[in-house]
Amino acid sequence: MFRLALDAMGGDYAPLQIVRGGILALKEFPNLFVYFVGDKKEIEPILEPFKEELSGRFEIVDAPEKIEMNEPPSKVLKKKNSSLYVAGKLVREGKADALVSAGNTGAVLAVGKFVIGAIKELERPAIGVAFPNPKGQTVLLDVGANVDVKPRHLVQFAVIGHTYAEEILGIKNPRIGILSIGEEEGKGNELVKETYPLLKETKLNFLGNAEGRDIFNGQFDVVVCDGFVGNVVLKSAESLGFTILNMIKEEIRKSFWAKLGALLMQRAFRKLKQKADFAEYGGIPLLGAKAPVIITHGRANAKAIRNAVKAAMDFYTHHFNDVLRKNLIELSGEVLQKGKNNKNV
Amino acid sequence: MFRLALDAMGGDYAPLQIVRGGILALKEFPNLFVYFVGDKKEIEPILEPFKEELSGRFEIVDAPEKIEMNEPPSKVLKKKNSSLYVAGKLVREGKADALVSAGNTGAVLAVGKFVIGAIKELERPAIGVAFPNPKGQTVLLDVGANVDVKPRHLVQFAVIGHTYAEEILGIKNPRIGILSIGEEEGKGNELVKETYPLLKETKLNFLGNAEGRDIFNGQFDVVVCDGFVGNVVLKSAESLGFTILNMIKEEIRKSFWAKLGALLMQRAFRKLKQKADFAEYGGIPLLGAKAPVIITHGRANAKAIRNAVKAAMDFYTHHFNDVLRKNLIELSGEVLQKGKNNKNV
Repeated sequence: MFRLALDAMGGDYAPLQIVRGGILALKEFPNLFVYFVGDKKEIEPILEPFKEELSGRFEIVDAPEKIEMNEPPSKVLKKKNSSLYVAGKLVREGKADALVSAGNTGAVLAVGKFVIGAIKELERPAIGVAFPNPKGQTVLLDVGANVDVKPRHLVQFAVIGHTYAEEILGIKNPRIGILSIGEEEGKGNELVKETYPLLKETKLNFLGNAEGRDIFNGQFDVVVCDGFVGNVVLKSAESLGFTILNMIKEEIRKSFWAKLGALLMQRAFRKLKQKADFAEYGGIPLLGAKAPVIITHGRANAKAIRNAVKAAMDFYTHHFNDVLRKNLIELSGEVLQKGKNNKNV
Repeated sequence: MFRLALDAMGGDYAPLQIVRGGILALKEFPNLFVYFVGDKKEIEPILEPFKEELSGRFEIVDAPEKIEMNEPPSKVLKKKNSSLYVAGKLVREGKADALVSAGNTGAVLAVGKFVIGAIKELERPAIGVAFPNPKGQTVLLDVGANVDVKPRHLVQFAVIGHTYAEEILGIKNPRIGILSIGEEEGKGNELVKETYPLLKETKLNFLGNAEGRDIFNGQFDVVVCDGFVGNVVLKSAESLGFTILNMIKEEIRKSFWAKLGALLMQRAFRKLKQKADFAEYGGIPLLGAKAPVIITHGRANAKAIRNAVKAAMDFYTHHFNDVLRKNLIELSGEVLQKGKNNKNV
């Protein structure tokens, strides 16, 4: 039995779409148990029609306190009766195996980092995004959990990315790069220059510097960077995707033939949009937390929540954290040992 | 008379396409004079047929030494008979008013920074790119000239960007942002947090933190960042653009109706490609050098070179550097004064 803590109150369409997403998942996955965490008064009526069908498969945990949009993490951690905090506590106490939330990213991060915490082999969990490339996917991490980092953290991110690519995306011996400007060793900022030799020492398949273009061209399977750069890339990529689609629409609007053409291409465009919607698809994992934590888009609907639940189950059934622990010791042992003795590395 | 130093040997299609680009520009702009700098043996035959028509409008300056791809800046600056170095020297000595080169970016930067140099009111020139947005353009800088920067440099970049947006792009009182993660003051890395209050002190129209998405959504006219982050954004945006276009092609290939549709949309796609090809269009300026320096793509053809020459002329005829000097003093006076007394700012 896989027991999920679902933050029923986070997201733009909470609780209706979130709870419906949980119901979708319960119907599809027979081994799933869901804690619907949130305002019981609001959640219960949505679940009412499914009470018998899903009997024994779920529990409503009352947590009426509200987290506002853009509430700072320090405040979030004080609201101990919020749906998010209570869901996190269920995971910490071992009652649930994973957390899914469509709440604001900063709040979910805070609960992931401080209520659930990182596995003990790791100092900091990281957020990973799998971007589409012509041949498959490239994992970029960290995309926002850690703003100012040390070289040893980037080494840890590399091992996390390796494990994600190999275990979840099925990429054997993933090609690892460090995000920089210029291909050659010695190019980049201070952080990159200090991290490069450490990554060379690991047993990872480290190919060297990756440039911005390498996130999307399929030359690397995993690209590591600090959470500041990664977040900027993630948000600019999302936005550029929209801008390009809007430009296409704008050009289409201008001509009758283009309009007709677009009509014929409708199916192709729809498929494309699915592929490009990397944030929507299955949510974004906080990698290295003691249990799977999946952050979905604030706009998540029932289908997106179902995908996020599926993603959390994948981490669980692949024993992601066990493999990650092993990899942290086997692939980067010496480097991390050095880091423990010298906090400047 | 506007006298241009054209590096005839830089770029994938040099010297033929570069020289042809110079000829295109000479035919179109009657006030233009071009120094074709490079291997005279190779350049002369290309210009031969235009000798009479363009008599007195150009001069070939022999500079036979070659700069290799990826040659480090330190080496570039020692090759004093290379086309790029000699072209830079023509500008430094006041014989030419601007430099255009399709050579490798690092090499052009080195010559721009160390042979031509920055205007004296400025510590470091910056590379600016004007990205398309739904309503117009957004200038991002620096995108690669300065990797590790101090807060005061970002303030200088903001004034440079303001001047570029106002004088060259015609945007009145441009809205300035600093690239960060999260909208609120206090979000970001150390550099951003230290720079934010300095930017608030200036007389610029400073709106606060811009996120990655704001580079492409039209909410800001100028976004400043260090050259590491900017370069990563530039290269990932170029690459994502290609990836999306390739995905469209891939989907089109799969269906007859989509193929037909694409045929009808051909014109629209062509226009879109032009708009998206921001690096191609007119090249990228090194802003704040003593004279306009335009770096074009290595793949630049004659048309791209013509566009770059036009861009250099625009900077010259708008007296960009005079306005920039004035703005540096009037818009950021106190902040920069503080910076001069405390190099940690």
